[in-house]
Amino acid sequence: MHPFASRPADSVSALGEERLIAAIRRWLGSASPRAPFGIGDDCAVLPAQRGRQLITVDPVIHGRHFDSGVPPRAVGAKLLKRNLSDLAAMGGRPTAAVLALTLDARVSRRWLEQFYRGLAACARQYGVPIVGGDVAQANGVLAASLTLLGVPAGQRIVTRTGARRGDALYVTGQLGRSRPSAHHYRFTPRLAEGAWLARQPAVRAMMDVSDGLAKDLRALVPAGAVAALDPAALPRRAGASLAAACGDGEDYELVFALAAQADPAAFARAWRRAFPRTRLTCIGRLVAPGRRPPGSLDPARYRGYEHLRRGRTA
Amino acid sequence: MHPFASRPADSVSALGEERLIAAIRRWLGSASPRAPFGIGDDCAVLPAQRGRQLITVDPVIHGRHFDSGVPPRAVGAKLLKRNLSDLAAMGGRPTAAVLALTLDARVSRRWLEQFYRGLAACARQYGVPIVGGDVAQANGVLAASLTLLGVPAGQRIVTRTGARRGDALYVTGQLGRSRPSAHHYRFTPRLAEGAWLARQPAVRAMMDVSDGLAKDLRALVPAGAVAALDPAALPRRAGASLAAACGDGEDYELVFALAAQADPAAFARAWRRAFPRTRLTCIGRLVAPGRRPPGSLDPARYRGYEHLRRGRTA
Repeated sequence: MHPFASRPADSVSALGEERLIAAIRRWLGSASPRAPFGIGDDCAVLPAQRGRQLITVDPVIHGRHFDSGVPPRAVGAKLLKRNLSDLAAMGGRPTAAVLALTLDARVSRRWLEQFYRGLAACARQYGVPIVGGDVAQANGVLAASLTLLGVPAGQRIVTRTGARRGDALYVTGQLGRSRPSAHHYRFTPRLAEGAWLARQPAVRAMMDVSDGLAKDLRALVPAGAVAALDPAALPRRAGASLAAACGDGEDYELVFALAAQADPAAFARAWRRAFPRTRLTCIGRLVAPGRRPPGSLDPARYRGYEHLRRGRTA
Repeated sequence: MHPFASRPADSVSALGEERLIAAIRRWLGSASPRAPFGIGDDCAVLPAQRGRQLITVDPVIHGRHFDSGVPPRAVGAKLLKRNLSDLAAMGGRPTAAVLALTLDARVSRRWLEQFYRGLAACARQYGVPIVGGDVAQANGVLAASLTLLGVPAGQRIVTRTGARRGDALYVTGQLGRSRPSAHHYRFTPRLAEGAWLARQPAVRAMMDVSDGLAKDLRALVPAGAVAALDPAALPRRAGASLAAACGDGEDYELVFALAAQADPAAFARAWRRAFPRTRLTCIGRLVAPGRRPPGSLDPARYRGYEHLRRGRTA
């Protein structure tokens, strides 16, 4: 469905602001609590939480993260799932979200309804109340930015920092060709896996793979180490080249470092008991610079998704 | 300063993503804590908070909330202050913010640096750590959306709901001509005033005036009542007509309902002791429908700022 209406009568401007906001509340339905705990006041009130919280923000932008080939319900779900993937990577579970929508007055009402209904269905599935939002107008734009709040699912928050030389590198699922395979909006955020991994003390550092493994890995590799990947081990999606598996973005998988001391066989067994249907692959190891085994792959040779390249289109 | 660079070498695309993010962290400086409490991981970790929290989200969009006539430092500050005004209206104080930036690759580096430095200076002034963010690219766009978290400054959160027939209506500061007077980015959010008002039990309901008094007041007026305003009392900014005072947006003042039983003289004295330099005006009263005194003004006769009117420009 094309996000822009061909007839003015089908656009959000025909609805006007007040009716649009009333419609959004209807479309969100039970995914949005009543004010002051939801939309309708200057701020939303969040119930008390014990302990530390987590916060992340990610958008979906027309022409960048979706086009008219992606069903609008899937765009709404993708917006939330992208953020859930970030939360998963720290071992978190979601508590609340707010949404800032920026749209051209010509955006189709039907498209927007499906977008919000898809977001609401996904929010109900993951138990995330959409507590607030903003709608603003801008020419030629259709973009939505979601801020997600969460709490640690267990005792521990796992960060990108903490991996050491000798640690093994693992990745969930498969990599590459996320766009052509529609994985970029059909994926399931690895919340359960992230929470489980955060409970394993041997998991030293973790992040989600969103800009391509090669680029994202850099953040996980500590000073005095390099990543040596086994090219044959990389779990590639059907049809994905090695370059695609290393460089394509939007995998929304977890990559983590397992302590060198851990027993990989016992870890793999525990994983299979917990997640019999989620593939887990040891893709390599952190080694001393210059100690990369022959035949191993240097991820620095591959480029990930580079934001802000002039003239780039999605 | 024009936000779009005339020479490619001066644009953010010449910088590239990684150097841009490093630059943003430098520009934010001490306003942004280190990861995992700030920018640099999948989520930011927020320290534990006791009790309820408040959350709000508001953007600034080029061509809508600012143009090249507004200094970029002021745009950065305005983004935070707009959200602080929402927090003030509930009696809150800020605790943390995250920022989602959507920009064309041709945006000027210098403009962006000044924007972030202005935001950072404002964030330090109000003690708001900028804990996270996202940068995404979109053609022809320059927009930033800020999500602000806060807590009640005292025991009580004041909502828009709770006003009753007979209550007096008050507004802080002056109304109208916010755009031509530059008030729309020079204003001071009424945080101290909002916190003080939330401590007064006689203040029954409160909100900020951002889309024009006439439109915003509707949210404060309970069923079975109408607002009767005194046209002579309305505190108008220099040069503002009655229509401008009622209908212009971006006043960022507080409007609230004071219980009919309260002593207005004692209230005014207490206010002047607390805020000798902030004007406070009783602008009218909530009355029964059909009981509007002769000469009083019906705010329903004035339009506020209507979002989503086709072809509208800022």
